[in-house]
Amino acid sequence: MANNDSDGDELESLRLQIRGITLEIMKKAHERMELARQVGRVKGRLGRDIKDEKAEQEVRLMVIREAQAMGMSSEFALRLLNMLLGESEAVQAAGMAQMAPSSITATNDDKKKSSQKKMTHLAVFQKAKQMEAQGIKIIHLEVGEPDYSAPASAGLALASSYAQGRYHYTDTRGIPQLRIAIANRAGVKDEARVMVTPGGRFAVFAAIAGLLRPGDELITIEPAWPAYRECADFIGARTKVLRTSIESGWTPDLRELESMINSATKMIALNYPNNPTGKVLDRKTMDAIVALARDRGLYLLSDEVYADYAFRPFTSALEYDYDRAIVVSSFSKTYAMTGFRVGYAVASADSIKKMARVQAAGVTSVAEPVQLAALAALAEDPSHNVELMKGRLKFLSARLKEMSLRFVEPDGAMYAYPQLPSGGGEMIIQDDMDLVEKLLEKGVAIAPGSGFGDSYKKFVRISACRPEKEMEEGLAAMAAVLGKKEAP
Amino acid sequence: MANNDSDGDELESLRLQIRGITLEIMKKAHERMELARQVGRVKGRLGRDIKDEKAEQEVRLMVIREAQAMGMSSEFALRLLNMLLGESEAVQAAGMAQMAPSSITATNDDKKKSSQKKMTHLAVFQKAKQMEAQGIKIIHLEVGEPDYSAPASAGLALASSYAQGRYHYTDTRGIPQLRIAIANRAGVKDEARVMVTPGGRFAVFAAIAGLLRPGDELITIEPAWPAYRECADFIGARTKVLRTSIESGWTPDLRELESMINSATKMIALNYPNNPTGKVLDRKTMDAIVALARDRGLYLLSDEVYADYAFRPFTSALEYDYDRAIVVSSFSKTYAMTGFRVGYAVASADSIKKMARVQAAGVTSVAEPVQLAALAALAEDPSHNVELMKGRLKFLSARLKEMSLRFVEPDGAMYAYPQLPSGGGEMIIQDDMDLVEKLLEKGVAIAPGSGFGDSYKKFVRISACRPEKEMEEGLAAMAAVLGKKEAP
Repeated sequence: MANNDSDGDELESLRLQIRGITLEIMKKAHERMELARQVGRVKGRLGRDIKDEKAEQEVRLMVIREAQAMGMSSEFALRLLNMLLGESEAVQAAGMAQMAPSSITATNDDKKKSSQKKMTHLAVFQKAKQMEAQGIKIIHLEVGEPDYSAPASAGLALASSYAQGRYHYTDTRGIPQLRIAIANRAGVKDEARVMVTPGGRFAVFAAIAGLLRPGDELITIEPAWPAYRECADFIGARTKVLRTSIESGWTPDLRELESMINSATKMIALNYPNNPTGKVLDRKTMDAIVALARDRGLYLLSDEVYADYAFRPFTSALEYDYDRAIVVSSFSKTYAMTGFRVGYAVASADSIKKMARVQAAGVTSVAEPVQLAALAALAEDPSHNVELMKGRLKFLSARLKEMSLRFVEPDGAMYAYPQLPSGGGEMIIQDDMDLVEKLLEKGVAIAPGSGFGDSYKKFVRISACRPEKEMEEGLAAMAAVLGKKEAP
Repeated sequence: MANNDSDGDELESLRLQIRGITLEIMKKAHERMELARQVGRVKGRLGRDIKDEKAEQEVRLMVIREAQAMGMSSEFALRLLNMLLGESEAVQAAGMAQMAPSSITATNDDKKKSSQKKMTHLAVFQKAKQMEAQGIKIIHLEVGEPDYSAPASAGLALASSYAQGRYHYTDTRGIPQLRIAIANRAGVKDEARVMVTPGGRFAVFAAIAGLLRPGDELITIEPAWPAYRECADFIGARTKVLRTSIESGWTPDLRELESMINSATKMIALNYPNNPTGKVLDRKTMDAIVALARDRGLYLLSDEVYADYAFRPFTSALEYDYDRAIVVSSFSKTYAMTGFRVGYAVASADSIKKMARVQAAGVTSVAEPVQLAALAALAEDPSHNVELMKGRLKFLSARLKEMSLRFVEPDGAMYAYPQLPSGGGEMIIQDDMDLVEKLLEKGVAIAPGSGFGDSYKKFVRISACRPEKEMEEGLAAMAAVLGKKEAP
């Protein structure tokens, strides 16, 4: 009893100390925000951007170093820092807003000048859909949605699910038959390593949300499908970007990749065959990336939804038996089943368990009729689709060459990613959004390059998902807008 | 230029100050965690719970007061505090874990004693499914999945979607026809106020993830479906719980609700007709809650998936024309379409826009065949289902009365939520998980009460989704385990 009393006193004393320290933290945080406001004002005068990745990185490294020195969890320290940085950005923007409007680097969507507009391919698609709803004819070269049919067996499975009474909640990870079939196809022995998801996108989301924490860092290799960054933003993880260039044939610089890794780095996201460039990594590069991930204990999120559309040897992350690899795939592209919304992830049973928690929280399970359709599709041979896409990509490449546009011929996937001509005096196209908008007015939808990375405003993505005749028509309109001569 | 130079110097000096202050914040936060660890140890010795809502609330009020005094954003201050509190809890748990096991209030799943185990109804369902896969017959009284059929027209729509080529990406928010039909049914004029989601669960997820920020507070009224808390946890928002009791007939105390609101509070989640109690709020209570939300500018997330199964007058949040109300509904319960995974949200166009960003990031859009099935279902009259459920709930209530179990007769939904007898000497049932496990061994699955709130370990949820004969059989097994005499 006496012991309990002294414990009670100790508890009270500790609580008072905690309150005192909480107040001190608040005061310091408040001071920090005042300084951030001043930084905003000065940056406004200097016409600089609020976001300064280099300065951020320096602070991050300092925080990691100091946390280690004082025996503090560097994970907690980084989460705290990321929260302060996020608030700082908001406060700096407010500081800038006190400046005269003319000196402001736009931070608000509404204030952006036309050339600073940014749209993803999905946003262009949504806009094109709205135009179609108004009766305007659109050639869709913006979206990765094949025009050919889903397998008839998938349709049949969908149709018979009702009569069979198969439209109930299933195991969060998917019905056993489908998980076993996927495990077989992926060459893994255990269906506990498989989760069926509502589209490949949700597999990406579940991996990032299930395996990373706020403040963790994810490395993406751009240009890339924007989902990795979007999912990281969503959970408060930070994205660091390794840029590749058309000059290097879209090959990532491995030394640069290695130099980006710090103790907050938790995942590398790969997207090969690449959307938008069509790049396929050679085996040696893939070996090196997996070795690096293994060495540093990083998750390797390998989005392989275009693996069946690889026209040179492709190495899946599954071939390495690396327990932190997560391979994402989908029925959307291979089987033209975009609107069925079904994909999957293959990873270690432990990673799948963590990802299943995200799926349970977000969607419970995938629609059972759709899972049955996916099971039927898996028995089909998609080689006809693959050959068709191969031919279309050849056609698209040939036409872009005739237009003298600079691009790297795609090794796979369903797109070409040409650079806009750095025009002479007659050029009227400023950047990707400018071209996208001018073409949309003519009923042709293409995707802006900057939707796949901020540094690619001089690129556009053209999809080979429509018949050659339609592609031809769309490309002719593009040539006209670019002031390019038609091929004879 | 000279001006630019001095601005540059100022920027450098500000940055140095910011780094210095960042370090100080880190040090204080580290000290705070050390104190929290000590608190954990003392609490372990005293056998107290880690979470101390009263102490938390006092600190919260102090922080708000001090933030106002120093001209700091109390929103930011509370987010900072909530982050520190979250870390503190983790660290206190670690501090407790250093104690001898016998004196520990379990915090780690694996270390919990049987009576401290916690499972949600979904986890019981998954376990029951696994038992079934092994050939064991299970009576499913744990899950909210009606046994009657989905409308034939929904099956037909699913079946014809393939032939019609309707299996493509749609507008993120859903196909226009379905959104218009939902808007009509909900009595709102604009389909921009509607989003179709992969199940009601994803509508909840999109609302919480799209409208709240980490550190924001959400109030739930327990017992309740655990999804609101799960989604809040997921994005790092804090859940504050207003508990209701069987003694008050599960009526929330409005003064208590009001007292829980502070400047970090951003949303109240309602779930009526309630899962698990079947409670329906009377109009006056609903009026008061909406008025409170309006007065304090709070989002009102009203999960009304059981609205069609209300057996006394039910007031939807939509009736108030409150622009921060988000109403969630689903096809799962009304039309027995659980495994179609389709639900929807109705809110202001602005809220829907924010929620659509979450949907775009997570799932792109709902499977088009499933949307067509939902459209067909909307034309059907569900009153047969409603009458059936009403009869079953009556039957269930009558049987529970015969067993002399204490419960409040449900006003709606699909469940009863009886209290376990506070037994005499012969009682062998410790708590809900104990009963759940003993019954599962006998092939009867029911849901533990604590899955709907930590304070309800003495309750279980029994679903009325199976035929009376099966319910009868399951309840007889339960009576036997509870040592209750069978009714003559």
